Amino acid sequence: MSDGELYYRKHVFCCTNERPAGHPRGCCKAKGAEKLRNYMKARAKELGLADVRINASGCLDRCELGPTMVIYPEGVWYSYASTADVDEILQRHLIEGGRVERLMLTPEQKELRPEQRPAAAAE
Amino acid sequence: MSDGELYYRKHVFCCTNERPAGHPRGCCKAKGAEKLRNYMKARAKELGLADVRINASGCLDRCELGPTMVIYPEGVWYSYASTADVDEILQRHLIEGGRVERLMLTPEQKELRPEQRPAAAAE
Repeated sequence: MSDGELYYRKHVFCCTNERPAGHPRGCCKAKGAEKLRNYMKARAKELGLADVRINASGCLDRCELGPTMVIYPEGVWYSYASTADVDEILQRHLIEGGRVERLMLTPEQKELRPEQRPAAAAE
Repeated sequence: MSDGELYYRKHVFCCTNERPAGHPRGCCKAKGAEKLRNYMKARAKELGLADVRINASGCLDRCELGPTMVIYPEGVWYSYASTADVDEILQRHLIEGGRVERLMLTPEQKELRPEQRPAAAAE
């Protein structure tokens, strides 16, 4: 049996893990992940992206970079902080097949780059 | 920026979604998904699979085939019903790079094949 075709053309996993308040690593949920994932799921539906699934997931273990999501099969990671970030990922990555380079996480990345910090996005 | 290397060599998502009792589609949690996912995570650690992550996820929307998991980047889906099934997936797929064909789900599959039903496994 070959692996066959993908069941979802793009499968998005948004970490919505919650840690106890004051945990040194923080958590995606405390940074708004659940609300943003719900927004992304609803927008994907409104946009008619039927072959895309926007899942919530448990801890993706990159808490310091959160909220984080990973998109498969390509394995591209993003940090996102606002509905505007989500809109950009939906349009550029999921619809157009491009990348939102500003928000992408590299494998070796341990902290957010200046342009990825929520404060920068709010300016 | 290229997509770069994968952050996890293999990223497993086990649906642990719970629906209200009596829901016509059923749910993975009622079929033991949470316990099996916890077992898989613990066994992966014991086996020293450091570049593999065993995540819980929200509803993967293949409830009738559950408990389900999907392994990326290859996008291979499995139905699994026991710790023996989990052990087989760990060994054959995650360690050896093969496939457990008996448990694999095809994209068009809507119900379990006879050999995938928990009763068959218990015989």
